[in-house]
Amino acid sequence: MTAPIRYAEDYTPGQVFDVGSHAFTAEEIIAFSREWDPHPFHIDEAAAKQTMFGGLIASGWHTALVMMRMLHQGGFLSLETSIGSPGHEELKWLRPVRPGELLRGKVVVNHVKVSKSRPELGFVNCTATLTNPAGEVVYLLTSAALIKTRAAG
Amino acid sequence: MTAPIRYAEDYTPGQVFDVGSHAFTAEEIIAFSREWDPHPFHIDEAAAKQTMFGGLIASGWHTALVMMRMLHQGGFLSLETSIGSPGHEELKWLRPVRPGELLRGKVVVNHVKVSKSRPELGFVNCTATLTNPAGEVVYLLTSAALIKTRAAG
Repeated sequence: MTAPIRYAEDYTPGQVFDVGSHAFTAEEIIAFSREWDPHPFHIDEAAAKQTMFGGLIASGWHTALVMMRMLHQGGFLSLETSIGSPGHEELKWLRPVRPGELLRGKVVVNHVKVSKSRPELGFVNCTATLTNPAGEVVYLLTSAALIKTRAAG
Repeated sequence: MTAPIRYAEDYTPGQVFDVGSHAFTAEEIIAFSREWDPHPFHIDEAAAKQTMFGGLIASGWHTALVMMRMLHQGGFLSLETSIGSPGHEELKWLRPVRPGELLRGKVVVNHVKVSKSRPELGFVNCTATLTNPAGEVVYLLTSAALIKTRAAG
């Protein structure tokens, strides 16, 4: 990893990270959804055409995982300092995601807080989005990432 | 599938569904997290011992997927009527999930609404939880499931 180690103090409100892109193939949508989320519109192209979606779309959970992977690989999180999240303020699947669409990932830092009781711990509140080629946000996640501060050593 | 087809009208506030159980193995935690969420405490037993978690824990996204699969396999959702979700009101990872812990899945229906503009569509608001052997809720998800009504035919 050539990415710098980022401590909570290194994130500032308004900061924007471009964290990469991903286009789903039909095959990966189907394979993932068969295992975890076998709605007909996620696993069967012919059946999907008969639904309100008019064709195969990715499971929202699959989309969420692609975003998570981008947070790691796109340099937003450092493995040395990131300690997960207690959950999310917002998790929205705003548009269907179709095979072949190139999704671009972005993260905006909303605010940063250091824990009063545990000064080695910071809360980096951020909004992560995936945007399709039409410029529409398809996925939006707002959450507090737990990040070590420099006090953690 | 022997599960009955459930339309939006078939869900009633207060209804409770037991949707099964799952215990993660260390191997599945590691394999999943290597692909999607490679925090050291998800992929490396030795490194995990040095973290605040004191050992290997499942990725919260992995836990979320196990819950999603239970909603399908545990008879809460019908493949014939379920059409996904626009997102979640609450998604909370309340406790670490460790290998070998048997997690029990439950869903409670909060309220049910039929769309005024689209009477073939219902919103089934529900809270899904996973509980560990100590009786602690480790994961909580509140969301509106989109479910066809009988008017959809």
